[in-house]
Amino acid sequence: MSQLSTRHLLGIKNISEDDVQLILQTAANFKEVINRPIKKVPSLRDITIANVFFENSTRTRLSFELAEKRLSADVVNFSSGNSSVKKGETLVDTVNNILSMKVDMVVMRHSSPGAPHFLSRNVSANIVNAGDGTHEHPTQALLDSFSIKEKLGDVAGKKVAIIGDILHSRVALSNIFCLQKLGAEVMVCGPITLLPKHIASLGVKVELDVRKALQWCDVANVLRIQLERQQIKYFPSLREYSLYYGINRKMLEELDKEIVIMHPGPINRGVELSSDVADSEHAIILEQVQNGVAVRMAVLYLLAGAKG
Amino acid sequence: MSQLSTRHLLGIKNISEDDVQLILQTAANFKEVINRPIKKVPSLRDITIANVFFENSTRTRLSFELAEKRLSADVVNFSSGNSSVKKGETLVDTVNNILSMKVDMVVMRHSSPGAPHFLSRNVSANIVNAGDGTHEHPTQALLDSFSIKEKLGDVAGKKVAIIGDILHSRVALSNIFCLQKLGAEVMVCGPITLLPKHIASLGVKVELDVRKALQWCDVANVLRIQLERQQIKYFPSLREYSLYYGINRKMLEELDKEIVIMHPGPINRGVELSSDVADSEHAIILEQVQNGVAVRMAVLYLLAGAKG
Amino acid sequence: MSQLSTRHLLGIKNISEDDVQLILQTAANFKEVINRPIKKVPSLRDITIANVFFENSTRTRLSFELAEKRLSADVVNFSSGNSSVKKGETLVDTVNNILSMKVDMVVMRHSSPGAPHFLSRNVSANIVNAGDGTHEHPTQALLDSFSIKEKLGDVAGKKVAIIGDILHSRVALSNIFCLQKLGAEVMVCGPITLLPKHIASLGVKVELDVRKALQWCDVANVLRIQLERQQIKYFPSLREYSLYYGINRKMLEELDKEIVIMHPGPINRGVELSSDVADSEHAIILEQVQNGVAVRMAVLYLLAGAKG
Repeated sequence: MSQLSTRHLLGIKNISEDDVQLILQTAANFKEVINRPIKKVPSLRDITIANVFFENSTRTRLSFELAEKRLSADVVNFSSGNSSVKKGETLVDTVNNILSMKVDMVVMRHSSPGAPHFLSRNVSANIVNAGDGTHEHPTQALLDSFSIKEKLGDVAGKKVAIIGDILHSRVALSNIFCLQKLGAEVMVCGPITLLPKHIASLGVKVELDVRKALQWCDVANVLRIQLERQQIKYFPSLREYSLYYGINRKMLEELDKEIVIMHPGPINRGVELSSDVADSEHAIILEQVQNGVAVRMAVLYLLAGAKG
Repeated sequence: MSQLSTRHLLGIKNISEDDVQLILQTAANFKEVINRPIKKVPSLRDITIANVFFENSTRTRLSFELAEKRLSADVVNFSSGNSSVKKGETLVDTVNNILSMKVDMVVMRHSSPGAPHFLSRNVSANIVNAGDGTHEHPTQALLDSFSIKEKLGDVAGKKVAIIGDILHSRVALSNIFCLQKLGAEVMVCGPITLLPKHIASLGVKVELDVRKALQWCDVANVLRIQLERQQIKYFPSLREYSLYYGINRKMLEELDKEIVIMHPGPINRGVELSSDVADSEHAIILEQVQNGVAVRMAVLYLLAGAKG
Repeated sequence: MSQLSTRHLLGIKNISEDDVQLILQTAANFKEVINRPIKKVPSLRDITIANVFFENSTRTRLSFELAEKRLSADVVNFSSGNSSVKKGETLVDTVNNILSMKVDMVVMRHSSPGAPHFLSRNVSANIVNAGDGTHEHPTQALLDSFSIKEKLGDVAGKKVAIIGDILHSRVALSNIFCLQKLGAEVMVCGPITLLPKHIASLGVKVELDVRKALQWCDVANVLRIQLERQQIKYFPSLREYSLYYGINRKMLEELDKEIVIMHPGPINRGVELSSDVADSEHAIILEQVQNGVAVRMAVLYLLAGAKG
């Protein structure tokens, strides 16, 4: 199989395991490309891609932009800060306008869950979800699974603990779907106030004690405490969080095994992770960033093919 | 004739009908280009274009940027939000600085009427006016005429009603000049408070009743109510405007003829146009957006030739 | 010699005269390139450069971006306005993230003196300092020396007066180092409140009277009064400054010699320089801007070679 069964990448929940595997295999090829002296391929030379970000994200936007440029696509950036959105235009009108300029693919971040799904039913281009509210962030989950496979040989059979603010995290949700599709066992761990009420219904283990989670897992995917998402004062405070859930070197040394530490970034050093963990041989955080470009190249490349 | 008689596109008022016709003919070729699988031509491979926007306009900036990239020009964007303008530098100094970096063409939006005209007398590059205050917006008028010609075969002899806030609209003024040069009959229609006092002196019909305007015209070019331009509370209110001037499906069905509905965007759905009109077979709004890229490619291509 | 002895351009203070000379010679070649009809060379076709600006600077960013594009590099822009920096990420983490995406060179502006030096010890890419607080702005000094050499044949033996706010100026400091390395005599001139206390220890003449400075020098490099840097009300006021230190045509006519007027821009017309001086045959201000692109092409080109 060399073609996706979908024209869009809206989330992990509704794509097939075959599609996930194809993306990961293709990403492995592109990782070779970006590690060559010549980091570009001419694959999408005739494709125009718009990065439409209704919510700020330098990191993700940069990763997509580099992926697009290394595929030789023409790239335009659109962010809502200076857009027609403020003038009261509807989302579909805004995107239809962009598409009328003969844009082939839209990479989109939006603060509302479901915005890219809504769009995909109303416009003609391929849509890639670069994060929709607290819903999904599929390319992050794909790059996380790619990184686990690269580090440990396979995702199937591995025990992965997702640790932190599960409630507000699109990364957590997409990772759960992706890891389960690929045959991993998944645990979520965090303070009870930061766990969704019905999380167990997704078929994941739930653990409140971070030491027990670390004891159980092969891989700890440690989420960022997204302070900017919290509208009101909440429990636990940053200081309490780091005291009870922050992971430090001593905790890892007490384990009688190897463990892989992942983090989607940006890191709050001293909160989720101490610096000596973030910079340790356990951490593959910068590998994740590099793999992000390769995975996004794969997604864009395959969707462009799916279109034809 | 295959060359413009002007080095700049500052407005429609002072260019010849031949120049307008040449731009429209050239745009027809570029529309074919952007509808091919390979949407690029190498025409401006050696040209550097700066998009200098002292006023926000994502839509117009994006259209120009895509036009430039499809002509293979090198593109740099400069917006006043993060510019030296705030540091007290004069407009001519700012632009001369940009041009000293060997920029060949400047696409410029400015809130002051006449700013691009002033510049064109003081700098050496080709200047394209992308909107100067309430004065002119020549590429919008050209793309509107292109769209009418494409839809109805010709502009000459057609009756075009421009409906809405004529007073604050550079789109209205440029359209009046362009349509008259091409032989159309032009009417303006809107509340008396939104019509310039001496508008009749431009040789246009004036109509206060939108139903009569629709009865008269072949094409209704419905302007956006630009709330952001209104400094003080004004009459009519949005609600009053939509009640008396908003165009809905029922009004079109009462006409005993075909009518073409245009809008420069972004649409305030439910204010100027009801959704069932904006999305109807009468509307060519998204065609206008697509034609905008083709028309801008033509303008840039022809000005680059005019320079040599 | 055709290779730099350094992998980074952090400042002028610590690079060799040979390196400065090599950059100026290489820039002369690139100045020819940008004055040809075809302004591009394929030299850095396989290099990705990130412009990482933690402080706004449209002018410098644009100059670097054009230099990079004319070397055919792939360019991504990152500015702190919409970045992870606000989310509490450390500088090294931010830049390491960017570099993990396989970025080869970082052009960086930061408000903290020493930030690029710190980075260069902690990341693997070539770092170019595009201004660090009140510390250094090496490419500005290089383009200033290039412009003097181009105008007067040589820098050695020339008398250069740097006039204005020496205290808050990274341009002044980098220029002093660069001019001295190349054998010029340097004077600083300004109100006593805008001169650093120990400036004479750098081996420069100090002069409070601008007329005497003009009498002495072959070249006056007139700095901008950077109001935006002044945290509190200070002496002299703008009006006092222009009265006592502003340079006008009459002052130049009273000199019994030719003089070259330079300014790093943006000019406050009527403050540091009257308009008839800024626009006179003495001024090479726009040549400086053009030379800035050539010098930055040389720096990037040579650092890319130094890397291999």
